[in-house]
Amino acid sequence: MSASETSQQSAVAPGGEGASGKAVGSGVFNVGLLGFGTVGSAFAALLQERAAQIEALTGRRPVLSGALTRTSGSFQEILDGSEAIVELIGGIEPAREYVLAALAAGKHVITANKQLLCRHGEELFEAARSAGVQLRFEAAVAGVVPVVRILSESLAGAHVERIHGIVNGTTNFVLTEMTSGSSYEQALAEAQRRGFAEADPSEDVSGRDAAAKMAILARLAFGTPVALDQVPYEGIEHLQTDDLQYARELGLGLKLIGTAERRDGGLSVRVHPAFLYSGHPLASVNGPYNAVTVESQAITEITMSGPGAGGPQTASAVLGDLVSAMLARPAVAAPLDPLPLVEDVESGFYIHMDVADRPGALAAVAQLLGEQGASIKSVVQHGLGDNARLMMVIHPLLESRLREALARIGELDFLRSTPRAIRVIEEEFT
Amino acid sequence: MSASETSQQSAVAPGGEGASGKAVGSGVFNVGLLGFGTVGSAFAALLQERAAQIEALTGRRPVLSGALTRTSGSFQEILDGSEAIVELIGGIEPAREYVLAALAAGKHVITANKQLLCRHGEELFEAARSAGVQLRFEAAVAGVVPVVRILSESLAGAHVERIHGIVNGTTNFVLTEMTSGSSYEQALAEAQRRGFAEADPSEDVSGRDAAAKMAILARLAFGTPVALDQVPYEGIEHLQTDDLQYARELGLGLKLIGTAERRDGGLSVRVHPAFLYSGHPLASVNGPYNAVTVESQAITEITMSGPGAGGPQTASAVLGDLVSAMLARPAVAAPLDPLPLVEDVESGFYIHMDVADRPGALAAVAQLLGEQGASIKSVVQHGLGDNARLMMVIHPLLESRLREALARIGELDFLRSTPRAIRVIEEEFT
Repeated sequence: MSASETSQQSAVAPGGEGASGKAVGSGVFNVGLLGFGTVGSAFAALLQERAAQIEALTGRRPVLSGALTRTSGSFQEILDGSEAIVELIGGIEPAREYVLAALAAGKHVITANKQLLCRHGEELFEAARSAGVQLRFEAAVAGVVPVVRILSESLAGAHVERIHGIVNGTTNFVLTEMTSGSSYEQALAEAQRRGFAEADPSEDVSGRDAAAKMAILARLAFGTPVALDQVPYEGIEHLQTDDLQYARELGLGLKLIGTAERRDGGLSVRVHPAFLYSGHPLASVNGPYNAVTVESQAITEITMSGPGAGGPQTASAVLGDLVSAMLARPAVAAPLDPLPLVEDVESGFYIHMDVADRPGALAAVAQLLGEQGASIKSVVQHGLGDNARLMMVIHPLLESRLREALARIGELDFLRSTPRAIRVIEEEFT
Repeated sequence: MSASETSQQSAVAPGGEGASGKAVGSGVFNVGLLGFGTVGSAFAALLQERAAQIEALTGRRPVLSGALTRTSGSFQEILDGSEAIVELIGGIEPAREYVLAALAAGKHVITANKQLLCRHGEELFEAARSAGVQLRFEAAVAGVVPVVRILSESLAGAHVERIHGIVNGTTNFVLTEMTSGSSYEQALAEAQRRGFAEADPSEDVSGRDAAAKMAILARLAFGTPVALDQVPYEGIEHLQTDDLQYARELGLGLKLIGTAERRDGGLSVRVHPAFLYSGHPLASVNGPYNAVTVESQAITEITMSGPGAGGPQTASAVLGDLVSAMLARPAVAAPLDPLPLVEDVESGFYIHMDVADRPGALAAVAQLLGEQGASIKSVVQHGLGDNARLMMVIHPLLESRLREALARIGELDFLRSTPRAIRVIEEEFT
C-alpha cells in the first residue's frame, strides 16, 4: 500500500511551527497509520484526496509515512518517521502500548478506540498532558457528530447540566423499524442485512457500547472519570413492538438514550430505553443516526446529529482530528473537581400492565403508585374484561420507588403478567 | 465595572506557552473587552464564573484586563495589557480599526461582528495569518450552534457539497407562529413582545441578516470569498398564513433557508423562504432557534441546532472561542481554489394561484409550465367557481424558467391575482 516519503521534518516538535504557524506552504507532515481495515483504508484514501486543501489551511502537506497492518509494517519505524499516529487497530492491546509509546515519544495521537479510552482514558490523557501533545478521539464516540470537539472546546468554559445522546446507530435503526411495526427480531435481521449491525450484535443491543461512549462524554463534560462498570445500562432486547405502538397514542417515541447529568450534587450516567415527547430534539432522529443534546444554563441547549459510524464517516472524523492536531494543542484537563456518581435518579415512566379489568382495578394500581409518591399523567386502556391492557405515564419518580411500586402492583391478583416500565424523558425544550 | 489586574504576562507572545503548553497552573491570561452592552456584560460575568475551569484546561487563568465602554476606557491601554481582544462593539468603524490594530499587535481576536466579517473578512483573515494569531467568530453566525468551528476544524479536510441553514432565530419564530395560524403582523408583534425581534426588524425579516451569515459560512466551507451583495435574498414579509396552512396538506413546513452549495462547477449562495418535507433535519426546528446542516459525500450530513443569539448564549460562544484561542492557533486559509458564483439554480417550487375555475384552466397552467420544462408533482384545489385556489408542487426547475412560466401564467384571463411561488427543498436525507 501507500507512501513512505521519509521526512526531514520528523525532528520538528509537534505544534512546533513556531511564529510561522500561519498557512504558508512548508514541508510535509508525516502521519503513521496503525490498522488498515475498513476505516484505515478509507482514511488513507481521504488523506490523499484532501492533502492540498489541508496544506492550504495548515501550511503543511499531510502524507502517510507508513501503515501497520496485520501482516506488514514495523511500529517502531512508523513511529520514528511520523509526527502524528492514527490508531485504528481497536481493542486494548497492543493499541494501548502503541498509543502510550507514541505519546511518550512526543507524537500527537488520533484514535477511534472507545474501549481503550473508556478503560484507560486517565492514563492516556495524563500521558498526553505530560508530553505536551494532543490525544484526539472524535471518531470514538458518535461517528461524524462532533460532540467530543464541542465538549472539549466550544463548551470547555460552560457549566454543562446534562447530556442526552443517541450514541448507537444500530439500536436506533432497530427501534425505528420497530416503530413501523417490525418485531425486534425482524428489525435486527434487517439491520444485519443492511450492514448496520454485526453478526454478533450483543455489544450494541445490550446498551454496553452506548454505555462506554457515555462514560467518555461524561468525563469530558463533567471532569469526572467514569469507568464502564459505573454506568448502569439496559438494552433494547426486551422491548416489544406493542409498547412502541401503544406509546404512540400517548404522543411518545422510543429511543435508546444515554444520559449524563448533574443530580443531587453528583453525576448520574446511565443508558436505557426511554420515551421522548415529540417536541424533544432527539425525538425526530431516525434510522442509523447518532445525535447528542448538551444542556447548560448559559447556552440552553445544542443538538448535533449525523450518521453513526461507517468507514468513510469515521475516516472523516479522524481526518478532522488530524487537521486540528496539525493546528493546535488542546489537552484534556486533569480532573479539577470530580463529581460523586449518583445511582438512584428520578424519571417519568410509562407503565404497561396486562390486567383482568375488574371494578376498582385502576384505583388499586393508582393507590400503590400513590404510596410511592407517583403522580399519574395519563392513562390509556385497551381491550375489555380479562384481556385488558392498561398503559400509564407517570410524572418523575425515583427509580427505587418505581421498582417498589411495580413489585407491589405485580402482586395484585388481577395482574396477568409482570408489569413493564420504560422511562419517559419529559423535559420541555423551549 | 470589573478587573484591571495588570499583568506581567502581557509580553508573552500569543500561543507562546512553548513546550509547557500543557495544563499546569502558570499565570494569568489577560483579555481586553471592547463593548459592554448585553453580550459584553454577560461575557464578563461568565468569564469570572468559569475562570477556574478554564485554568484547569489551559494552564492559565483568564482575567479581564479592561473594558472599553462608550464612556470609559482607552483602547490603546487595553490593547497593551491584553493577549486577546474580545470585540463586541458591532458595526464597521471603529470595530474594524480596533480589530486590525489588535491583530497587527499580535493579539488573538474574538468577535461576534457579522457585518465586519462579511464586508472586510479577507482583510481581517489576512491580517490574522500575517501576524500568526487567531481570529475567531463563532458568535457571529449562528448563536451557540458551533458551525464555524465545525466547518473550519472538523470539516477542514472535507469536501463540503452543501450547507442549509436556519440562521436567523427571529424569522424562524415568526414562521413557527404563522404555521399555528397567526398572521405575519401578529407573529412579528409577538416576537417583539418576547424580545426575539427588534423594534426595527427589517434586517431580520428581509433576509439580509441571514444573507450576511451565509456569506461567512460559504467562505469557510468553500474557500470562496462572498460579498453580501453577491447573495440574493428574499425575506418573509410577503408570506401569507394561507400558504403555510395549505402547504401542510402537501406535507410541507416553511422555513427561511440559507443555502450555500456547489452548482454547475461553481458556488450558489442564497437566502429565501422554502418548504421542507417533514423528514428534512431542519423541518423540526421551531421557535427562535438556529440550525445548520452540512452535507458532504464522506460524512453524509451533520446537523447542529440550538437557540439563536441571546446575551448569555452569545457570551458562551465567545468564551468557547477564547478557550480555543488560549489553546490553539488555527487560521482561515487563504483562498486556494475559489469557485465562481452561480446565480440561476434549480429548485422545486410550490405555486399558489387564485383562479376562476373554468374548464381547461388546469390544462392551460400545466401547458405553460410544461413549455418551461416543469413537471408537476402534486396539485390541490380549494374552493369552486370564480373563487378557486390552485396549489401545485413542481419538480426542480431553473429559477429563470419558473419566473418565465409565472409571467405567462399571470397573463391568463382566468387568473385573479399574480401567482406566487415558494421554493421546495426536496432532497432526501437518508
